[in-house]
Amino acid sequence: MRIALVGVGMIGGSLLAAWRQAGLVATASGYDVDRRALELAAGRGLIDRCATSVAQAVADAELVVVATPVGAMREVFVQIAAALPGGALITDVGSTKGEVIDQARAALGAGFARFVPAHPIAGKELPGVEHADARLFAGKRVVLTPTTETSAEALTRVHGMFARTGARVERMDPAEHDRIFAAVSHLPHLLSFALVAAIGAEADGERKLGYGGAGFRDFTRIAASSPVMWRDICVANRAALGEELRGYRALLDRLQQAVDSGDATALQQTFELAARLRRQWANPADAR
Amino acid sequence: MRIALVGVGMIGGSLLAAWRQAGLVATASGYDVDRRALELAAGRGLIDRCATSVAQAVADAELVVVATPVGAMREVFVQIAAALPGGALITDVGSTKGEVIDQARAALGAGFARFVPAHPIAGKELPGVEHADARLFAGKRVVLTPTTETSAEALTRVHGMFARTGARVERMDPAEHDRIFAAVSHLPHLLSFALVAAIGAEADGERKLGYGGAGFRDFTRIAASSPVMWRDICVANRAALGEELRGYRALLDRLQQAVDSGDATALQQTFELAARLRRQWANPADAR
Repeated sequence: MRIALVGVGMIGGSLLAAWRQAGLVATASGYDVDRRALELAAGRGLIDRCATSVAQAVADAELVVVATPVGAMREVFVQIAAALPGGALITDVGSTKGEVIDQARAALGAGFARFVPAHPIAGKELPGVEHADARLFAGKRVVLTPTTETSAEALTRVHGMFARTGARVERMDPAEHDRIFAAVSHLPHLLSFALVAAIGAEADGERKLGYGGAGFRDFTRIAASSPVMWRDICVANRAALGEELRGYRALLDRLQQAVDSGDATALQQTFELAARLRRQWANPADAR
Repeated sequence: MRIALVGVGMIGGSLLAAWRQAGLVATASGYDVDRRALELAAGRGLIDRCATSVAQAVADAELVVVATPVGAMREVFVQIAAALPGGALITDVGSTKGEVIDQARAALGAGFARFVPAHPIAGKELPGVEHADARLFAGKRVVLTPTTETSAEALTRVHGMFARTGARVERMDPAEHDRIFAAVSHLPHLLSFALVAAIGAEADGERKLGYGGAGFRDFTRIAASSPVMWRDICVANRAALGEELRGYRALLDRLQQAVDSGDATALQQTFELAARLRRQWANPADAR
C-alpha cells in the first residue's frame, strides 16, 4: 500500500514501523514541518520520500495518516483536501475526536466519507520519531470513532490496517470517546502538570521536588510529556475536560474541608472507594 | 541489640530484616493489634517473641521502633512510657513528624530525650509484613528530625542503626520535613485517591476506568495504598497539607478558566514549567 504520513513523530513513525514489519508498505512518503524529523525517519528506513509539502506527500497515496498534534490538524485537512487522490483513505491518531471530526468534515468535502477517525491508546513520554517502535501497539487498544457519514468499506479497511499492528481495535461514539478520555487521560495529565508547576512555583519548590520518592515520580511521570501536544488536546477537548475538572474540583473542595477540620471519616471514605476501585481494575501484575 | 517492634507491618518488618542481615539483632520482640501479622513475622524469622501487649514487647528492649500508622502512635507512646527500660532508645517511622513529636513529648517524659523521630523515604503499595524486604532501604533516604531536647548520643546511635540498612541518613527540622512531604507525598496521594474516587462516582465511572492506559496507571498507582494509613497521615499533617492543597486548588481554578475559554497560552505556560522541572529533577533512567 502507498502510505502518506503527515506529522512524523513517535506515534506515526511507530505505525509505519509496524506496517513495514507486517509487509504492508509498498512506499511511504512523509511530511513534517520539522525537516530533521523527516531525515531521521528516512534514515531509519521508515519513509522512502521526504515531501516538501502536505500536497506532495499525499499526491499518490492510498492511505493518508494524519499524526500531527491535534491543534495542527485543521490546516492539514485543508491541505490534504486540495491534493487527495480519489478513493484514498484517511485516518488520524488524535487523542480527541469530536473537534477533529468537525474539522475534517469542514475541509474534506466528499472525501470525509473515507476519513476514519482513530485513537491508538499507546504512547510513551519520549517524543520524536527517534523513539518509534514497531511493537508500540501490540496488545494495546485502538479506538475508531466513525460517524454516520463514514463509508463502511473505508471503516473495514482502516480497521484491518490497525489490527495488523497487533492492536485490539474497537469502535465507539466520538462523544463518548471524548468523555472517557477526558477522565482517564486528559484530566490526569493536566493534574500532573499542575502539581509539578504548583510546587515548582513555591519559594523552596526545587528543594521540595528533590525529596519526591517513587510514588511522586510515578504520579508526575506524565508531566514530562509534550506541553504543546497536551495544550492542543486540552483545548480541543475543552468541553468534556472542563466538566471532568469541575467534578474533580468539587471533590477537592470537600477534601480541603476534611483536611482543615481533621475529619478522618470523610478522608477515609474517599480513600477507601479509590483504593478498592484501583485494585479492582488495575492489572494485578502492575500493583507494585 | 535487643529490639522491640511495635506495629509489625511492611516497613517495620523490612527494618528488622535489614538489621538481621547486618547482624545487629540479638533478639526481637514484636507487638501488633493484628495477631496474624505477629505470627507471620515470627514464621519468617523476623521476630523471636510475639508479645501480647506493648508493655511486654518493650520490657527489656534497648531500642524500641514504633511502626504503627501515625494515628495510633499517641496511645503507643503512653503504653511505652509505662514500661520502658531506663536508657532505651526510641524511634519511629512515621511519615509526619510535628504531631508525632508533640505526642511523644507529652507521653514519654524524661524518655523523650532518647526519642529520635525518623522517616524512612521508602515504601511500596503492598502493605503487610509478608512484603517485608531487607533491601527496601538500600540507597533510599532516611530523614531524622531531632528536636533541641533530643540527646546527642541517642541521635548518633539511631543514625548509625538506620545507616546500617543501606540508607542515606540526613537530618532536618521537623516543620520543614512536614512542609516538604505535604507537597511531594501527602498531597499527591490525596490527589490520586481523589481522581479515582471522582471518576468511580460517575454514572459510567467503572467503564471509564477500564480505559485507563499506562499513564493513568502510573498516576493512580499510589491510590492503591492503605486508606487508613493515609487518612492518619493527612490528619496528622493537616496544617501543612491544607496549605499545599489550597495552593494547588488556586492553580486548578486558573486552569479551569483556561480550559473553559480555550486559552492555549495559559495552559502551555503551566505545562512547560512542569515538563522542564519534571525532566530536570527526575532520574533520566526513570523517564520512560
